[in-house]
Amino acid sequence: MQSLAIGGFMLVVMAFPVGRIEAQSAPADTSGRARVVAGYCAAWNEPDPTRRANLLRVVWDTEGEYSDPTPANLKGRDALSGHIDGFLKQFAGGSIRCSAPQFHHQSGRFTWEIFAANGSSVVAGMDYAEFAPDGRLRRIVGFFGPLPLVNK
Amino acid sequence: MQSLAIGGFMLVVMAFPVGRIEAQSAPADTSGRARVVAGYCAAWNEPDPTRRANLLRVVWDTEGEYSDPTPANLKGRDALSGHIDGFLKQFAGGSIRCSAPQFHHQSGRFTWEIFAANGSSVVAGMDYAEFAPDGRLRRIVGFFGPLPLVNK
Repeated sequence: MQSLAIGGFMLVVMAFPVGRIEAQSAPADTSGRARVVAGYCAAWNEPDPTRRANLLRVVWDTEGEYSDPTPANLKGRDALSGHIDGFLKQFAGGSIRCSAPQFHHQSGRFTWEIFAANGSSVVAGMDYAEFAPDGRLRRIVGFFGPLPLVNK
Repeated sequence: MQSLAIGGFMLVVMAFPVGRIEAQSAPADTSGRARVVAGYCAAWNEPDPTRRANLLRVVWDTEGEYSDPTPANLKGRDALSGHIDGFLKQFAGGSIRCSAPQFHHQSGRFTWEIFAANGSSVVAGMDYAEFAPDGRLRRIVGFFGPLPLVNK
């Protein structure tokens, strides 16, 4: 196993019969998928329905499916826009920030954090993402709170 | 927002138009899905191909899809068993431990950690999971290393 400290991040690379295991430590990501996730996050911060629809048209598949533990479980741009509308009314003046995504094959993950109007952190979580062949998001499955931990 | 410390875990519940946001802090989980994930983890620790096939028959859908960044991307029990075989030969005498899963709707997540034969931690990661209607796993998408973080 090799460990390299690069720019403050730890990169771990091991030999593995079918490829390699590489710890994905928040790499700089300037690809199309990173832009799509940034646009998706921008839609969650856009209170104007028309502007939000324009953002979602670029990043969300017409058949895209969204679910989270609230327990939202919906399909399509209009349903997602309505769900975001409820969120923005709940957290009026607040915001949500997203991390850069990590991904492989057609899937990815990124984290996010909701901040109240006064700047205090409300809740953090992680979204699992799937991309359609044209690069738009076709699935987001949200999880709230910290990761479950392995017993040691 | 309400915060409750229960048994050492922090539970956060907020009002939300479409339901509630609840931080999922590794709850005790004795459901069928938790047993399925435990069986899946046991299959990753089973070097005997026949016993491993028996474990996978219980927990893995015949059309189940698996991918990770190694870059494994496969379908079906035999292909998954072969991938696990490569892993177990690479880490002979080692083991993998899994957390309890969190889930909602048809999806879930859990973390895992690989230990070498001498007990040292090699790498940790997280699996996204989807369940078929009969409760078996129909998709695992693995991610290695820590979560990407939100810039503050």
